[in-house]
Amino acid sequence: MLRTHTCGELRISNVSQTVTISGWVQGVRDKGSLLWIDLRDRYGITQITIETENAGKDIVDIARSLGREFVISVTGKVTERYSKSDKIATGDIEITPDKIVVLNSAITPPFTIEDETDGGDDIRMKYRYLDLRRNPVRQNLELRHRMAIETRLFLDKLNFLEVETPVLIKSTPEGARDFVVPSRMNQGEFYALPQSPQTFKQLLMVGGFDRYYQIVKCFRDEDLRADRQPEFTQIDCEMAFVEQEDILNTFEGLTRHLFKSVKGIDIPELTRMTYADAMKFYGNDKPDIRFEMKFVELNEVVKGKSFKVFDDAGLVVGICAKGAAEYSRKQLDELTEFVKRPQIGATGLVYARYNTDGTIKSSVDKFYNEEELKKWVAAFNAQPGDLMLILAGEENKTRKALSELRLEMGNRLGLRDKNTFACHWVVDFPLLEYNDELNRWHAMHHPFTSPKPEDIALLSTNPGAVRANAYDMVINGVEVGGGSIRIFNKQLQSQMFDLLGFSKEEAQAQFGFLMNAFEFGAPPHGGIAFGFDRLCSLFGGAEVIRDFIAFPKNNSGRDVMIDSPSPIAQAQLTELGIDVKKA
Amino acid sequence: MLRTHTCGELRISNVSQTVTISGWVQGVRDKGSLLWIDLRDRYGITQITIETENAGKDIVDIARSLGREFVISVTGKVTERYSKSDKIATGDIEITPDKIVVLNSAITPPFTIEDETDGGDDIRMKYRYLDLRRNPVRQNLELRHRMAIETRLFLDKLNFLEVETPVLIKSTPEGARDFVVPSRMNQGEFYALPQSPQTFKQLLMVGGFDRYYQIVKCFRDEDLRADRQPEFTQIDCEMAFVEQEDILNTFEGLTRHLFKSVKGIDIPELTRMTYADAMKFYGNDKPDIRFEMKFVELNEVVKGKSFKVFDDAGLVVGICAKGAAEYSRKQLDELTEFVKRPQIGATGLVYARYNTDGTIKSSVDKFYNEEELKKWVAAFNAQPGDLMLILAGEENKTRKALSELRLEMGNRLGLRDKNTFACHWVVDFPLLEYNDELNRWHAMHHPFTSPKPEDIALLSTNPGAVRANAYDMVINGVEVGGGSIRIFNKQLQSQMFDLLGFSKEEAQAQFGFLMNAFEFGAPPHGGIAFGFDRLCSLFGGAEVIRDFIAFPKNNSGRDVMIDSPSPIAQAQLTELGIDVKKA
Repeated sequence: MLRTHTCGELRISNVSQTVTISGWVQGVRDKGSLLWIDLRDRYGITQITIETENAGKDIVDIARSLGREFVISVTGKVTERYSKSDKIATGDIEITPDKIVVLNSAITPPFTIEDETDGGDDIRMKYRYLDLRRNPVRQNLELRHRMAIETRLFLDKLNFLEVETPVLIKSTPEGARDFVVPSRMNQGEFYALPQSPQTFKQLLMVGGFDRYYQIVKCFRDEDLRADRQPEFTQIDCEMAFVEQEDILNTFEGLTRHLFKSVKGIDIPELTRMTYADAMKFYGNDKPDIRFEMKFVELNEVVKGKSFKVFDDAGLVVGICAKGAAEYSRKQLDELTEFVKRPQIGATGLVYARYNTDGTIKSSVDKFYNEEELKKWVAAFNAQPGDLMLILAGEENKTRKALSELRLEMGNRLGLRDKNTFACHWVVDFPLLEYNDELNRWHAMHHPFTSPKPEDIALLSTNPGAVRANAYDMVINGVEVGGGSIRIFNKQLQSQMFDLLGFSKEEAQAQFGFLMNAFEFGAPPHGGIAFGFDRLCSLFGGAEVIRDFIAFPKNNSGRDVMIDSPSPIAQAQLTELGIDVKKA
Repeated sequence: MLRTHTCGELRISNVSQTVTISGWVQGVRDKGSLLWIDLRDRYGITQITIETENAGKDIVDIARSLGREFVISVTGKVTERYSKSDKIATGDIEITPDKIVVLNSAITPPFTIEDETDGGDDIRMKYRYLDLRRNPVRQNLELRHRMAIETRLFLDKLNFLEVETPVLIKSTPEGARDFVVPSRMNQGEFYALPQSPQTFKQLLMVGGFDRYYQIVKCFRDEDLRADRQPEFTQIDCEMAFVEQEDILNTFEGLTRHLFKSVKGIDIPELTRMTYADAMKFYGNDKPDIRFEMKFVELNEVVKGKSFKVFDDAGLVVGICAKGAAEYSRKQLDELTEFVKRPQIGATGLVYARYNTDGTIKSSVDKFYNEEELKKWVAAFNAQPGDLMLILAGEENKTRKALSELRLEMGNRLGLRDKNTFACHWVVDFPLLEYNDELNRWHAMHHPFTSPKPEDIALLSTNPGAVRANAYDMVINGVEVGGGSIRIFNKQLQSQMFDLLGFSKEEAQAQFGFLMNAFEFGAPPHGGIAFGFDRLCSLFGGAEVIRDFIAFPKNNSGRDVMIDSPSPIAQAQLTELGIDVKKA
């Protein structure tokens, strides 16, 4: 090793030892008679101190030639510092060097390698290897490592087997778009990269593997939104001989273990909410329950008072913002602007202040007198000092808009602390949702999800009312995991494909292997997948998953560091038997 | 859970408990008054015993309706067996059922689900999910799981960080053929799947990550030989501030840990052999040293006796097979046939028996008298009872052929027990090898491998003589891992690309990001990668890696279970902007 110790481990107990440390020059301060080098590696920073009058000329010359990010190795004696620092773990000591070796020089980095850098996103992506030297980025990836190994340890103890499923699989047009890989040995044919190992993990259950997990890369060729990556990582799990309750308990256990082992937090038992309640009370299938502020439906309370907006609305629904009665006109205008933004789409916002003096003042006083407004207060169970915010319109759209307003109020009132974690399950999702555009049913989770046994009869009469044995884990308003109990019967799976508009031939061509497998003794089974990038970012208290991926792609799917994708040689295309169409 | 216990865990201490177990029907034996069901899951087999006269009619009816591989759940009382079995762990008990539920029926499997099956390779691949139910296959994958988690635990303790590197990267024509992925968002451009995460792990070192590992899928679009997969798995590692010695020690440690924790074997310290010695004494850069049988060069001993074959040969070289002097004429003919096979390519085999009575008898007695043959005995240090086997011809070809003969003799003499493990390092590989076909130098390991510092001057004068800081770990004659100390200096890397015939523009376009990274303070670093599939098969005492992969592809790169690769829809091609050429 080109070191005896790292830059993070020397302590007062090492004083008078001769050591060698290696790392990057964080900075050099030259005060003439004294010269300090801060030497950095992944583990910390150690100060090298040179008394220029006593040190050899060669050492002083080398020290004065060093620039930021030079890679050096320093051999010397550990000495107790005169003025100690409690800002760094090695702050009690310094090194008096006998030898400094420059292992590599460095040109000036395009941004500062500091916790707060002056580099913008684009330049940091291009020089990602320099960005990785910054503590916050490195710590994110250290967190990710810890999350992964604790996940594995927990699941290993429960007899889960990690099994690698193939990456070169088969394209199945259902769901998102596949990335495909032309086959050279079978020209005109393609592999596809997996959107998830779904069918393989089910086959492992058919194969008697009983408990499977994998931390695995998945791929979706979608138009990228702000925080989505074409390749992403899942904690993918499946269990046989289970019911929904078993899956929920097992993976609640995993979540608690991760919070405890990685962050030292004991989280309370996870609550459960039906999809129907999530939509009714939060307008959202992944409600952030760090704060209450549930929806209150007001049709019965507000209609028939000649206020056309409310009278014409499918739904009048509101939230009560605790202690916000003193919001200024300007703040209320901001909220109105907020809900009227095209992506939220409300036509306006009605408010009523329940003032601390007991008076009630609304933006629709000309339609509702104090007595009427008292009914509002009662409906909201509002207290003096609260602000009632009300939207009206078509039911689904209005719920969705109010959900956004609720989250905005949560932010404004400081109710969404990133270091507070509220985890819960949303259960009883609908099996199907109707796609008006394609004029057919679409699987809300995926086509392998089992209907609740008691709802199976509805499949042929009222498919939209069928509930699935499907569940999502939600943390702080983010869906971090989702899964279902699977169909394990050929006839039911075939019926499901029928409902989803597959012809018998299509179903057989794409998923025949799975349906055939169900004939050879398939056990009841179910599973779950966690979005690992997202889970890490949540644990890291961050919003952007890109910061938790070592080498992410940008929003155009490009890796700007290696400049990929890129054209390939004509010889490669020829070997693969494909042509690129001229634009 | 649809069970209280698995089929592998009930013992005499559970007697009189009421339990539920679930699994697959391994078999039903019906003796009229008594009826037994063997119920199997991943964990074991438990016997269900039904006294047909005392049991309810429904239970008897269900039991008699069961076929092989039906999935059932059985609730009943654990009772002590009258005649115990020591063949299975649950052999002391049986279950007297109160209830049997058929969870799923099964049609007759196309081959028997037994340790020794009647199914051929092709049918077992097509129904891989049934093959996975067989103990030997499942145990291979359990071994693989254990290998993976022990690898992670060992490296985690040494501060290695598991970092996921991207799968969608950039095509680099150097080396094997890439699989490519057309980009829809950047039409006419392609991603490539990684042949290894080489450049990314080096960038992680430049980024200060210090110690990296990953158990990672890699991809090579090569014409598949018998035991090669288009996607395969590596234990991929890299360390900064190290010298070759540090890498060897660290990964010798990993290997010892795996043998100890997975197989309970303490392996001795790994020996080291230079590439030059490996070729000289074994004709092979991955010698199997479970047995000695070193090459003995005989040019000085045998030439000049008018035996034209030897006199004209560049090299006369042999091995001494201990105790094989009594090989019959037939056996010797077989060996001659063996070395004359086209893939081995020797023109003939000379032998000399050193009989137990002290006489020496060779196949070339007319050229060599007893006195001459005694010189052979001395050269081989042969003992009475030994058989000397000699090949002659062009040096490299002859060494290669003798290496094959040596391995064959090792097999014949029972010296290659798959449960004996001989691990060692081969070091000091040449940096370059000359490709006569392409008329240029080729990197023996890869273009990022560092020459030994003392040999750098030879790069411009005698490139073929430059030794690399490269090393392979060999177990039982199989190269299970290899790596090198890397170049970390832009100029040297650039010189290397020059030597390999890259133009400046090509080098910049393909690896510019890495060479640029070297300018910003790259530390000395090196690493290694283990072929994980191969390592698992070695630990499993098997030769075929396919048996250690859950869903392998066949020799045409096809997954016959899911029938992939396969044609994709024209709409997909259109979106990607590519055409399939008509054959």
